[in-house]
Amino acid sequence: MQRSGPVDGTPAEAEVFTTVLTSGPIARADIARLTGLSSAAVTRVAKLLIDEGYLEYAPGEPAASDETRMGRPSSPLRVHADQTGSFGVIVRRDELIGMVCDLAGGPRVAERRPLTDNRVEPAVAAVAAFYRDLAASAQRLGFVDPPAHLGLSLSGDIDHDTGYVRYSPFLGWRDVDLGAAVSRAVAAPVVVENDVKALTVAEQWFGLGRGITNFAVVTIGTGIGCAIVVDGGLVRGAHSVAGEIGHLPLGDPAVQCHCGAHGCVEAEASTKALLDRCRAATGRDDLTIGAAVELARAGDDGVRAIFSRAGQVIGLALASVANLLGPERVIVAGEGVSSYDLFETAIREAFAEQAFGAAHQVPIHVRDLPFEEWARGAAAVAIQELVFPSRQRVANDMRRRTGVRRG
Amino acid sequence: MQRSGPVDGTPAEAEVFTTVLTSGPIARADIARLTGLSSAAVTRVAKLLIDEGYLEYAPGEPAASDETRMGRPSSPLRVHADQTGSFGVIVRRDELIGMVCDLAGGPRVAERRPLTDNRVEPAVAAVAAFYRDLAASAQRLGFVDPPAHLGLSLSGDIDHDTGYVRYSPFLGWRDVDLGAAVSRAVAAPVVVENDVKALTVAEQWFGLGRGITNFAVVTIGTGIGCAIVVDGGLVRGAHSVAGEIGHLPLGDPAVQCHCGAHGCVEAEASTKALLDRCRAATGRDDLTIGAAVELARAGDDGVRAIFSRAGQVIGLALASVANLLGPERVIVAGEGVSSYDLFETAIREAFAEQAFGAAHQVPIHVRDLPFEEWARGAAAVAIQELVFPSRQRVANDMRRRTGVRRG
Ligand SMILES: [Zn+2]
Ligand SMILES: [Zn+2]
Repeated sequence: MQRSGPVDGTPAEAEVFTTVLTSGPIARADIARLTGLSSAAVTRVAKLLIDEGYLEYAPGEPAASDETRMGRPSSPLRVHADQTGSFGVIVRRDELIGMVCDLAGGPRVAERRPLTDNRVEPAVAAVAAFYRDLAASAQRLGFVDPPAHLGLSLSGDIDHDTGYVRYSPFLGWRDVDLGAAVSRAVAAPVVVENDVKALTVAEQWFGLGRGITNFAVVTIGTGIGCAIVVDGGLVRGAHSVAGEIGHLPLGDPAVQCHCGAHGCVEAEASTKALLDRCRAATGRDDLTIGAAVELARAGDDGVRAIFSRAGQVIGLALASVANLLGPERVIVAGEGVSSYDLFETAIREAFAEQAFGAAHQVPIHVRDLPFEEWARGAAAVAIQELVFPSRQRVANDMRRRTGVRRG
Repeated sequence: MQRSGPVDGTPAEAEVFTTVLTSGPIARADIARLTGLSSAAVTRVAKLLIDEGYLEYAPGEPAASDETRMGRPSSPLRVHADQTGSFGVIVRRDELIGMVCDLAGGPRVAERRPLTDNRVEPAVAAVAAFYRDLAASAQRLGFVDPPAHLGLSLSGDIDHDTGYVRYSPFLGWRDVDLGAAVSRAVAAPVVVENDVKALTVAEQWFGLGRGITNFAVVTIGTGIGCAIVVDGGLVRGAHSVAGEIGHLPLGDPAVQCHCGAHGCVEAEASTKALLDRCRAATGRDDLTIGAAVELARAGDDGVRAIFSRAGQVIGLALASVANLLGPERVIVAGEGVSSYDLFETAIREAFAEQAFGAAHQVPIHVRDLPFEEWARGAAAVAIQELVFPSRQRVANDMRRRTGVRRG
């Protein structure tokens, strides 16, 4: 079994693997139906993936040879979950959350660790130390080899193809070649992705995005983020910018945002914006966001109105996504979800008023996902890289230019 | 040669045909490179498409047999342009604009005709009569058979898969089974598409969308519309709603829109909104939009400010598309482009302020496209249907659920 490289990386291999990953255990006939590949192609690719250790037959199957199986359409396949998987680490302002997943994306090890110094160099060293500890845990769990890829996620403007952090406001980082720095420190391949996009890959593979091709994830909390899946693909943007819902000018044009523009969603609905307003309204400069939530729940009208106004702006943002893209569903996640009760009525009313025509039908799902789930997203991005490397995707971009997609 | 049905409709056929359509004359080796198909697959599919009359060798090639050619990588192919193409008709409030295209999408016949009664039944009859006249013109031009498909486009909420018009505000139509009605009247297959989406298909195949995979078209004028291409595919929306940029709440929340919501882009920037404001500002109830443009160009500050404010809201709309989707470029079209000079500064300033990070780099291209080009879009949608029928696309949707695309 070769563990050094990714799956050979033909599109058919990536498609069969991902189908088994998201829908397994699954019979080859069903893989053929779902992928549109011929039975012969599925059989050939599945054999390759079994030989390479990526796939296995689900238990209870007779131990007949592959040659015998080929004629039988109903041998279900699943991802070889004991196989080496991937690491995911999300870098937050003051904390690292890490996850070791098996190849099927199943969580095996989850750990948190304070990030005491979030300047670039100490943070890279902290990630590397964390990685080594996670790798030791993975080895104790009996993974044959250490996971091949480390997926890192963090908020901000990230160039996934190069691993470059253009700007991460919450960490205060600009133009950091993070992928290369961490890769040197851990001596393993590293992929870097925006945290909301990584979470969205986890939702697509294991959460509310399973089985649908068009959806959006909107996160509320420290920042207001968004990632969009269109026709099964994550929208990354030609200039690596996409999903910047926090800077749509849906709020009061008199309010300036930290980005320099006016009326941004984040300028009224981020945790910091909420807290600033609640402090001003109560005159309590030491108010925490937790205390503000308590006050609102206790019935403080001034504070309630601030949450409600934020909910209104968030509702307009959800309606804007629905009107522009018409997703099958919108998933709302992020720390802000823990006080969703304070936003909910205003979100619902603003969405109902602003959603255009059939966009009213777009369902909004609220998901209270712990940061471990975000770290799992980073691990999922690493698995994606293993299965379908960026360089392969770049080559495939050429093929999309005809306006007709195959899959 | 079989003209009754579409190309057999395997994805490879659609991809090879579309590649030759958008990039031909093109050598088979280049088709293989662009599509990612094997040389053998390209050769096989190309032979089939030549046999069916869809493709031909570019002139000047030796008349060797296909068998001989197969070993030669440089025989350029092009779409058989004398082959039967398609009709496109755009239905406007008071006019029909029709186009007959050859199979390569090349315009052959273009005609306009007043639509004197735009209620559904008379409009269907008028479209059918127009179709028959266009068909006669096409026959005089020597098309072997009348074009197989009629593409119809109109503004509003259109279900492309069923040909159903859910709501077309400018025609005052609701829940009209237009595709079926016109198909019965002309005894030919009909596809119906939103006019901006159809125009976008034309841009993708023949205009500024050629060779790129992510772009948006924003139209200004009677309505403010948008169509979005992501990864080479037109975003149609799960509920057939997408691109409703006219109803993003980027304007003054005190202004109510005809849709019932507040602060919509259309409520400040559509031709009607502009005209209402210019009439109020000048006190001239009979002011036409042309006269308002004249006044503004002559230096009337009140009228100039109204256009400028509309430009500001349009600029915010363009920035919203750039922030959410990060397209490679945004194309601005529509009747409003004829007075773009009055919007331009405000559009540019609002876009520059609101585009987030690298979204600043998204270039805005202004295109003054006549309605014949919109009708060509309807014809292009009909060619698309011929090459890659909806039922095929529906089957392919299944294959997108894995999150990995092949093309
Ligand atoms: Zn902002
Ligand atoms: Zn509206």
